[in-house]
Amino acid sequence: MTDEFTRIAKYFAPLAGEAGRGLLDDAAVLTPPPGREIVLTVDQMLESIHFLPNDPPDLIARKLLRRNLSDLAAMGATPLSYLLTTALPPHIGESWLAAFAEGLAQDQEAYKIHLIGGDSSSSQQHISLTATLIGHVAPGGALGRNGAKAGDEIWVTGTIGDAALGLRARRGQLTDETGFLTQRSLLPSPRIGLALAGIANAAIDISDGLLQDLGHICKASGLAATIHAALVPASPEAAAFGDAFLEARLTDGDDYELLLAVPPANAAPLRAACGHLQVSKIGNFDNGPPEIKILDEFGRLKTFSKQGWQHF
Amino acid sequence: MTDEFTRIAKYFAPLAGEAGRGLLDDAAVLTPPPGREIVLTVDQMLESIHFLPNDPPDLIARKLLRRNLSDLAAMGATPLSYLLTTALPPHIGESWLAAFAEGLAQDQEAYKIHLIGGDSSSSQQHISLTATLIGHVAPGGALGRNGAKAGDEIWVTGTIGDAALGLRARRGQLTDETGFLTQRSLLPSPRIGLALAGIANAAIDISDGLLQDLGHICKASGLAATIHAALVPASPEAAAFGDAFLEARLTDGDDYELLLAVPPANAAPLRAACGHLQVSKIGNFDNGPPEIKILDEFGRLKTFSKQGWQHF
Repeated sequence: MTDEFTRIAKYFAPLAGEAGRGLLDDAAVLTPPPGREIVLTVDQMLESIHFLPNDPPDLIARKLLRRNLSDLAAMGATPLSYLLTTALPPHIGESWLAAFAEGLAQDQEAYKIHLIGGDSSSSQQHISLTATLIGHVAPGGALGRNGAKAGDEIWVTGTIGDAALGLRARRGQLTDETGFLTQRSLLPSPRIGLALAGIANAAIDISDGLLQDLGHICKASGLAATIHAALVPASPEAAAFGDAFLEARLTDGDDYELLLAVPPANAAPLRAACGHLQVSKIGNFDNGPPEIKILDEFGRLKTFSKQGWQHF
Repeated sequence: MTDEFTRIAKYFAPLAGEAGRGLLDDAAVLTPPPGREIVLTVDQMLESIHFLPNDPPDLIARKLLRRNLSDLAAMGATPLSYLLTTALPPHIGESWLAAFAEGLAQDQEAYKIHLIGGDSSSSQQHISLTATLIGHVAPGGALGRNGAKAGDEIWVTGTIGDAALGLRARRGQLTDETGFLTQRSLLPSPRIGLALAGIANAAIDISDGLLQDLGHICKASGLAATIHAALVPASPEAAAFGDAFLEARLTDGDDYELLLAVPPANAAPLRAACGHLQVSKIGNFDNGPPEIKILDEFGRLKTFSKQGWQHF
């Protein structure tokens, strides 16, 4: 394996934007866009916890950025740049690094962001990756989890549960004929760039599972929620499994769709803001303790064994 | 071990500043101080690589913050806030977490910073910690590594090599009667708050070893350097070992003192800016290829087997 400084010069310095000063300094310097607030988020991906050891390195890199971009999307922020921390075990070689850097380059291009700094270390055994993403919003324009109001409708972007099924396909527990579900599990599409300020009262990205992330909004906003299982949008590939994996689709993470609290009067502006992106109403917020009722197509209460993925 | 959300609510939310929004959102929102540039740095600490498994958790927390604060100090930045990422194995219990959070609280107070966000995950076996520190500088006021000029003097703050000896004491390789060297290894003192803009042409913090970090300035500035081993300041505790550990003192990391390139005319302003903090001239930058000559007290060339700590 190449040494730390050669590695930075060869693979990471070419990814650096102006604020990264060639990755040659102790820290990055960022000139905030005039009149904007800065939004900061950090997420880590650990081998065997967040990705499998043989996942393609370029997809690991892109998922690392996209998980963080999804957090910026949930805040209504525009991405700007990022810091990258790697801890790599001795067996990681040039080809892994080259593919990893290529994945970063690809999504830097796709999302108009640049690497501005980071930290590189060795690890004993497992790959550990952390990205800090920096974005910006209009002052006061950041969406939070605590702004939902009783009567707001619950909307979600895209389709829910593809990543849960994709993970099971990668584990050999089901067959993913088209590869779509696997792809959704390996490489999410963060919903960056939707102009949701003034339309949604609250937002979160679905990273821990629909029910758990909805629960975060309920707790932060002090509201109860009701969702209709039949309204939770499924991709054709997921729908083909019927209700066989319904609990997994609602409680597993990694979809990186947005879950929104939207006043009924804003449904049309929401659809307009989402353009070609599918957006679906799945339920409502109500006054009451922060609990979630899930109803089947006959209005009967459904219960599940768990609400989402927690890191213990 | 408590679950992720209980852990955040119990130990980390109390550390959150206003911009952290109670750690309830997907990301932190930061209003940049008017007319200032933002400085961002990230550093990780991994069990068995950067700290020993039985190190006191409060000192691990404080060292994590201080390593990053030292990078801000090297840029001439004023600290503002931080993001924290933890990956903790299942055996980590409440008492470890409580002590870790107490250490964070203590240095938040000491350095006037607040936790504004982060990420919490499980790990399989080892503790992995990452902090992203955010600071600010006057526009154009950030110190870099590439500004040194031929003829500049090389100055260092504090004393050099205490952490190298302290690490050896912790490993039982030498006796540290007063505990001073051990303390310097466990808990650095980042040189935050020195008004070095306009005084130093370049700066770096000594985290990888004096020679290696000096080498970074040489490379970035395109200069050669000469240092006089006898001028490298030793604490009384380190001086007691004579030259027995000279190579370790010059090549091991973790001192977190500042190394500065200072025009001769600025020596007096430098001393004034450092106040009670010891600051010592140890050599000069010259035109030439980026190499470092180390001279003994008779002006003879010394050679060492390695220049500093590299991660592979």
